[in-house]
Amino acid sequence: MTTATATSSEFDQGIALHPDGESGCYRGELGTGWQIGGGINGGLLLAVAANALRQELPEHPDPLSISCYYLSASRPGPVSVRTEVVRRGRSLSTATAVLYQDDEDGTPVERLRVLASYGELAALDGEVQTSATPPALPPKEQCIGVEHAPPAFVEQAALLQRFDLRLDPATVGWALGQPSKEGRIQGWFRLADGREPDPLALLLVADALPPVTFDLGIPGWAPTIELTVHLRAVPAPGWLRVSHATRNLAGGYFEEDCEIWDEAGRLVAQSRQLARAPRVQQ
Amino acid sequence: MTTATATSSEFDQGIALHPDGESGCYRGELGTGWQIGGGINGGLLLAVAANALRQELPEHPDPLSISCYYLSASRPGPVSVRTEVVRRGRSLSTATAVLYQDDEDGTPVERLRVLASYGELAALDGEVQTSATPPALPPKEQCIGVEHAPPAFVEQAALLQRFDLRLDPATVGWALGQPSKEGRIQGWFRLADGREPDPLALLLVADALPPVTFDLGIPGWAPTIELTVHLRAVPAPGWLRVSHATRNLAGGYFEEDCEIWDEAGRLVAQSRQLARAPRVQQ
Repeated sequence: MTTATATSSEFDQGIALHPDGESGCYRGELGTGWQIGGGINGGLLLAVAANALRQELPEHPDPLSISCYYLSASRPGPVSVRTEVVRRGRSLSTATAVLYQDDEDGTPVERLRVLASYGELAALDGEVQTSATPPALPPKEQCIGVEHAPPAFVEQAALLQRFDLRLDPATVGWALGQPSKEGRIQGWFRLADGREPDPLALLLVADALPPVTFDLGIPGWAPTIELTVHLRAVPAPGWLRVSHATRNLAGGYFEEDCEIWDEAGRLVAQSRQLARAPRVQQ
Repeated sequence: MTTATATSSEFDQGIALHPDGESGCYRGELGTGWQIGGGINGGLLLAVAANALRQELPEHPDPLSISCYYLSASRPGPVSVRTEVVRRGRSLSTATAVLYQDDEDGTPVERLRVLASYGELAALDGEVQTSATPPALPPKEQCIGVEHAPPAFVEQAALLQRFDLRLDPATVGWALGQPSKEGRIQGWFRLADGREPDPLALLLVADALPPVTFDLGIPGWAPTIELTVHLRAVPAPGWLRVSHATRNLAGGYFEEDCEIWDEAGRLVAQSRQLARAPRVQQ
């Protein structure tokens, strides 16, 4: 495997921004390689907004908690981010970001809004008391890669080519029409170009797996209403173990809880999203 | 028990706001009855901000997802809320709120910032597929009420007098110096004046129990960094079952997951907060 450096990697190019003259404003480009269906993956969009906030908060480089409310579907092409620092504190700073794209008339349309508190993960210490355990996954060579997905599916999900994703066979019965109905999808994750994980990449990973509703027997797109990610530690280099689970689908919405574990066995991120369930075919 | 109506209740008085002339701005009063330690309870503050947003979004009265970032400790006294509607949609509207108080010089100091999507819970339908189960609680008469708490504790937590809270004895060993170390506190909850639960009251309930770190053997105040609540159904009248749990305390922070179940056996709210762990005495 070729190993991408932090600047040459697809992910770093995907979230790259340059200052827009006006203070706190940035411009970038949403690449076609991050598409899923007609839109851009929500985790990548969150990482773009988080990257803008990171520029504004050099003393606090990492989002410890970041909440994103999705407003309209993003498209490949130019993107702008406007930031506002709400409070600069000693150990934490809080800020907001608005990500928007111009529509055909040149009118800015807001795609998402972010509220986040940044700190420095590497500076955290103190004891670890965790009762959480990493997902039990079969070895990678027994897991299911994108090479087994139907070509029609991969075609509308250019995103998948950015990932080296190996799903636990026990949680991909839905691909064969036999969902487990347990509401769980889990697997091994790495960026395809070998770029190592870091806090911003974990934001992408938190929304990288197929919707957990697939495993409830509900195919189709599940738009995210809100996604909050808590980053808990700097990830070690190597593979990540990722699990998505839901326990309550009701009234047309479901929550999706994600945990990300690094190769050192540490729980490096916890996230929850509220998503709209796909319409069930009557 | 005297039953409070929605307008005479302590909770409704606690979150009452009146328009401040300027569009989208409101003023209220944080009552001493909602104090915990020197500050005002974070759930009550969230409900105040949510009440302001509710005035701005009459077509979408309920927060389906609401995220709150706490910036500084609130004090009893006048409070202001400034709202901004980000997007009005067909089934959801998204808005932000800033809650602030003037310091001694009259300078406004931001206490918290909220980002939320509102909809109409009563209009949601569709099947319920839930694998979540309510916490197993002993009957209320076998649970531990505030009458058993040390008077010194109750004295600095006026808040507790607003609640009829009956904690599961299995999760209050910490009060006797014997924490279970499982990271769970659960119990029955009702407002003391009999005011029935509704979506805004659930925001209070999501932050009503003692910090779950008590059950890890770590006493002390655990300031909330971020709290996101997903409201999933309109609660039935009656008692609520509430559970708080944490699975990962690390680097001085922990997550606290809360579930709230109504008397009809429905999971009506799920929340997660990131909080700073109290300093352990060396």
